[in-house]
Amino acid sequence: AIDTYGVGKVVASGNPEFEKGDIVGGLLSWGEYSVIKPGGMLNKLNPMGFPLSYHVGVLAFSGLTAYAGFFEICKPKKGEKVFVSAASGSVGSLVGQYAKLFGCYVVGCAGSQDKVALLKEKLSFDDAFNYKEVKDLKSTLKRYFPDGIDIYFDNVGGEMQGAAVDNMNISGRVAVCGVISEYTDYEKRAAPSMMDVIYKRIKIQGFLAGDYLNKFADFFTTTSDHLRTGNIKPLEDISKGVESIPSAFISLFRAQNVGKKMVKIAEE
Amino acid sequence: AIDTYGVGKVVASGNPEFEKGDIVGGLLSWGEYSVIKPGGMLNKLNPMGFPLSYHVGVLAFSGLTAYAGFFEICKPKKGEKVFVSAASGSVGSLVGQYAKLFGCYVVGCAGSQDKVALLKEKLSFDDAFNYKEVKDLKSTLKRYFPDGIDIYFDNVGGEMQGAAVDNMNISGRVAVCGVISEYTDYEKRAAPSMMDVIYKRIKIQGFLAGDYLNKFADFFTTTSDHLRTGNIKPLEDISKGVESIPSAFISLFRAQNVGKKMVKIAEE
Repeated sequence: AIDTYGVGKVVASGNPEFEKGDIVGGLLSWGEYSVIKPGGMLNKLNPMGFPLSYHVGVLAFSGLTAYAGFFEICKPKKGEKVFVSAASGSVGSLVGQYAKLFGCYVVGCAGSQDKVALLKEKLSFDDAFNYKEVKDLKSTLKRYFPDGIDIYFDNVGGEMQGAAVDNMNISGRVAVCGVISEYTDYEKRAAPSMMDVIYKRIKIQGFLAGDYLNKFADFFTTTSDHLRTGNIKPLEDISKGVESIPSAFISLFRAQNVGKKMVKIAEE
Repeated sequence: AIDTYGVGKVVASGNPEFEKGDIVGGLLSWGEYSVIKPGGMLNKLNPMGFPLSYHVGVLAFSGLTAYAGFFEICKPKKGEKVFVSAASGSVGSLVGQYAKLFGCYVVGCAGSQDKVALLKEKLSFDDAFNYKEVKDLKSTLKRYFPDGIDIYFDNVGGEMQGAAVDNMNISGRVAVCGVISEYTDYEKRAAPSMMDVIYKRIKIQGFLAGDYLNKFADFFTTTSDHLRTGNIKPLEDISKGVESIPSAFISLFRAQNVGKKMVKIAEE
C-alpha cells in the first residue's frame, strides 16, 4: 500500500483511543480502507465546522508549508514586494493570500490565463502573469517589479529562480519550497548569479514544513480565523473515487490542478 | 586615479585632524602619493606593534570578511565539518584558522600542491586537496567528508558549490563570499540541486563585510590576540613598487597569490 496524508472515518477499532465513527487524520494508504497498526501516525480530528478537505489541505501540511515558509523563512515586512511562482498551486495560492493579508504587494505567476484571472480576481493578488506566454523572464519580472523583489517564494526552481534573483533587492530572500523544474525538466535548470547573491546579500533557503510543527497552533488559529471571515479562500481540486487516483497524479505533474489536488474516496 | 584600501603616512596635511607623520588607513589611490579630499574615507591608525601590512589584510577587510562570514553567516557549532574553497587565499586562509580555533574539522581546497602543503603544515587544516587534480568533485568531497559537510565557505561558486551542496548535511549552510568561477569562467557555472536545498534545509547566503562593521571591535580584539600568540598566521603576498601593480592584478586573477595580495609602494 502507498501511504498518503488523508482524513477518514473509523469503521472498526481495536484501540481504545479510537471508536467507530471517529474522524481521524494522518498517514493512511491510498484506497477505500486503511488498516492502521499501533504506532501509526493517526490523530483524532475535530472538523470544527470546516469541510474535511480543509483538514487535508489548507489546515494541514499545504497550509503549514505556506505559513512557515512565508513567515519563518522569508521574515516579511509590511510593504515588501513578494513574488510567488506556481501561485495557483496548493501552497503558492496560500502564500499569496498570507502575504496580502500581512500587507505586502504580491505578484504571482501561473501556467494559464484562467489561473492568472483566478489569482487576480478571486485571490486579490496585486498582479499575475502567465509564464508560458513570456519570452524573457528577467525583463518580465522587471516590468512587474520596477522597484525590485524583496521576497521570492519559489515553487519551481530553475530559470525562474535565476530571473527572480536578477530582479531582487538588497537583502532579498528566496524560500525554496518546490522544484517542479527539477522533477520534470520542463524548464532548463539554471543557476542564480552568485555575484548577485553576494552583492545583494541574498539568502536562498530550503525548508520543510515538518520542522515547524511548533508553529502549528499559531498557524491553525490564524488560518481558521481567516477562513471563517472569508479572508482566505482555499483552492481545492477534488476528484472522486479510487479510480481517479492515477489521473489525479497525472494532472498534478501536468500542472493541470488549481489549488490542492485531493481525491475523495467516499462521501462523509 | 583608481581607489584602493591602503595604509600610508601623511606627508602634508591641511586638516587639523591629521599631522605630518601620522599613519593612516582608508581609501587611497594606487600610486606613491594620494591627495585625500575632505569627506574621504580615512582614519588614523595605531599599528599596535603589528606590521602595517596586517592593517591592510588580516586586521582589515579580509579579516572582517572571514570573521563575519564564518561566525555571523555560518553560525558554527563546535565539531562541525567545514569546507573552505580557495583556502590559501586572503579570506579562505583565515576562515580555516578561525574554524580550527573554534573547534571545527576543516578541509580546504587550493590550486597547487604547494598551497595544499601550506594549508596542512603551516595553517593546521585537518586536510586539504588540489582541486585541479580532481576529476569528480562530488566524490572527492565525499571522500574528505564521509559524514557530510555542515558548513561550506564558498569563495569560488560554480561547480564546487554544486558538489558541496550534494555532500551537505541537514541544516547545512553555504556562505557565499566570492565567485572566482563567475569572474573568469575557468569553471563551468553550475547550479546546486534545489531538491537537495529543500530536503536538507540548506541555507545559501551572500554577504559583504561592510554590513558587519558593528562586529569590527570583536573581530579586531579576537584576531589581534590570536596574532600575538601565533594562533593565527596571516598569509601575505607582497610585491614591491608602483611598477608591480599590473603584475599583482594578473597574479590575482591567475590565482598565483598565496594569501593576501598587496603592493608595497614605499618603505615605512
